[in-house]
Amino acid sequence: MGETGERYDIAIIGTGPAGLEAAINAKIRNKNIILFGSKELSAKLVKAPKVNNFLGFYNLTGKELKNHFAAHIEAMGIGIVNERINNVYAMGDYFALMVNDKIYEAKSIILATGIEYGKPLKGEEKLLGKGVGYCATCDAPLYKGKTVVVVGYNKESEEETNFVSELCGKTYYVPMYRGEYKLNPNVEIINHKPLEIVGVDRVTKIVLEHGEIITDGIFMLRDSLSPSQLVPGLEIEEGHIKVDRNMQTNIEGCYAAGDCTGKPYQYMKSAGEGLIAALSAVSYLDSAKK
Amino acid sequence: MGETGERYDIAIIGTGPAGLEAAINAKIRNKNIILFGSKELSAKLVKAPKVNNFLGFYNLTGKELKNHFAAHIEAMGIGIVNERINNVYAMGDYFALMVNDKIYEAKSIILATGIEYGKPLKGEEKLLGKGVGYCATCDAPLYKGKTVVVVGYNKESEEETNFVSELCGKTYYVPMYRGEYKLNPNVEIINHKPLEIVGVDRVTKIVLEHGEIITDGIFMLRDSLSPSQLVPGLEIEEGHIKVDRNMQTNIEGCYAAGDCTGKPYQYMKSAGEGLIAALSAVSYLDSAKK
Ligand SMILES: Cc1cc2nc3c(=O)[nH]c(=O)nc-3n(C[C@H](O)[C@H](O)[C@H](O)COP(=O)(O)OP(=O)(O)OC[C@H]3O[C@@H](n4cnc5c(N)ncnc54)[C@H](O)[C@@H]3O)c2cc1C
Ligand SMILES: Cc1cc2nc3c(=O)[nH]c(=O)nc-3n(C[C@H](O)[C@H](O)[C@H](O)COP(=O)(O)OP(=O)(O)OC[C@H]3O[C@@H](n4cnc5c(N)ncnc54)[C@H](O)[C@@H]3O)c2cc1C
Repeated sequence: MGETGERYDIAIIGTGPAGLEAAINAKIRNKNIILFGSKELSAKLVKAPKVNNFLGFYNLTGKELKNHFAAHIEAMGIGIVNERINNVYAMGDYFALMVNDKIYEAKSIILATGIEYGKPLKGEEKLLGKGVGYCATCDAPLYKGKTVVVVGYNKESEEETNFVSELCGKTYYVPMYRGEYKLNPNVEIINHKPLEIVGVDRVTKIVLEHGEIITDGIFMLRDSLSPSQLVPGLEIEEGHIKVDRNMQTNIEGCYAAGDCTGKPYQYMKSAGEGLIAALSAVSYLDSAKK
Repeated sequence: MGETGERYDIAIIGTGPAGLEAAINAKIRNKNIILFGSKELSAKLVKAPKVNNFLGFYNLTGKELKNHFAAHIEAMGIGIVNERINNVYAMGDYFALMVNDKIYEAKSIILATGIEYGKPLKGEEKLLGKGVGYCATCDAPLYKGKTVVVVGYNKESEEETNFVSELCGKTYYVPMYRGEYKLNPNVEIINHKPLEIVGVDRVTKIVLEHGEIITDGIFMLRDSLSPSQLVPGLEIEEGHIKVDRNMQTNIEGCYAAGDCTGKPYQYMKSAGEGLIAALSAVSYLDSAKK
């Protein structure tokens, strides 16, 4: 793995309203930030048919609102690094953010990763860690020469799948979206809906709407990793990241904002928390003169 | 006192970003709301020279941002009742909101009153309740035939002063702003800056930059009442209304949002909390079928 060299003041993961408002406020406070996410900002924003409850904007489509947000960060010179963070490790006085074969470093982090609305597949939770995984690039070495199924929920999954396919004996890709797939020729695409993951002590197969695949491992690559998968040691309460009123998590220097911290799942709640998280991170950095 | 008859689902006090975002969300959820505040929305909004940290709006003056907010609530048919709430009493299954000689009733309330940045006068806190008061119309009967000084921070203070002058022997008005004063002819206007309130067990006089006034009572009518003055029994922590992550205060059915709940003092934090407070009030109303 290669390090990127620079150590940032604040790494922000996620480009929904929470991550964007965090980035704006951290930047105003002159911090050296890096913002990870998607150029499309947030699928949940782009898909909203009509938004009426974001103060100042009435009767806009999600896409129109997204354009206002994009114009705002662009005017402030805030760029987006279009990468998916696979894991974050607290290293003591800094955080290591893993992206496939790269490592980014930051003195503090803000998790603004949103939340996965969907339910897990039948059998998924039971077999988690027993053949089911959420980070293909992290666990791929375990499947050298073996068979792996990747269930991909977005285009970013394709890159991870290609990486996996270079190590594994056989790689199947089950796309959960439509589009053109940029996959290595040795990846087999299966266009059937997955229904259930089967196995007693370990994964043996995945059942699809039409047929099944006998496999050693299954990666579920959803839009959001569960936060505890993303940051080992993070305290979770009823499925959400546990934060105090300053958006501080149980890990020093690690803050969270938006849907990932709990209901209500709404833009303005997310943005408000993004602001608080940023100012908390700023005062953490300043107090510690880190 | 006269009752206004109708019992609202939610009364929202304050028309800054917190109160407005609360009103928008309560209205979307089909609640019968009443919103108290100023047609100018918020002095702190109108006065901001430049706002860069409200997601979606870049490089606007506070006034321009205010106009976007005003257009939003207008488009949704949300009106503002231009009255100052003097006191709120928890009556068990509803709240009574006192405005001079009127009473409004609501099943739940959201406090979005902002915060007073200024420091109290020297002697003010020591003599609070011992001749110093914050609600002239509430306490005026105590000063029948006596001398009273009203220190008024805004135009709304004038109405309260007139009310007082009809009961008291002598009323002085010390305005903290410029403008035309609409006061009863028996009110004496004193245009000197107040410096100190003096008294041992009770108020004896107020010292001004030039001269002093011997008096029985002094009313300080600032833009915001302290929350514990506004709502007796409300739990305060380090000068702010104590709330949990749902913006619930220690009083059932009473929520708070914005600057009044604590730092950071910022628009987006206030708006985010306004949304949460509204949805919490909605679920309180729905769960109790109140
Ligand atoms: C169809 C629809 C309509 C909606 N309508 C409304 C509405 O009208 N009003 C309202 O208030 N709310 C609405 N919502 C809810 C709203 O979309 C969410 O509450 C809001 O988007 C949450 O913001 P967020 O910043 O917390 O997360 P998100 O907007 O979900 O953004 C999270 C971002 O983080 C990225 N990310 C996640 N993990 C990683 C990682 N490991 N590395 C890099 N990036 C990562 C994601 O790709 C995403 O871009 C709607 C939602 C949907 C689905
Ligand atoms: C000059 C200036 C510049 C600023 N610039 C920025 C900035 O760039 N970015 C930023 O994020 N923040 C800024 N702020 C801070 C921001 O203004 C506040 O955080 C924000 O206004 C708080 O919103 P709020 O809704 O909690 O309260 P407020 O905006 O203070 O609104 C409270 C409202 O409640 C009304 N009210 C109070 N008591 C009663 C009562 N008893 N009855 C009826 N109505 C009542 C008040 O009159 C007022 O209208 C600035 C502040 C100032 C003073």
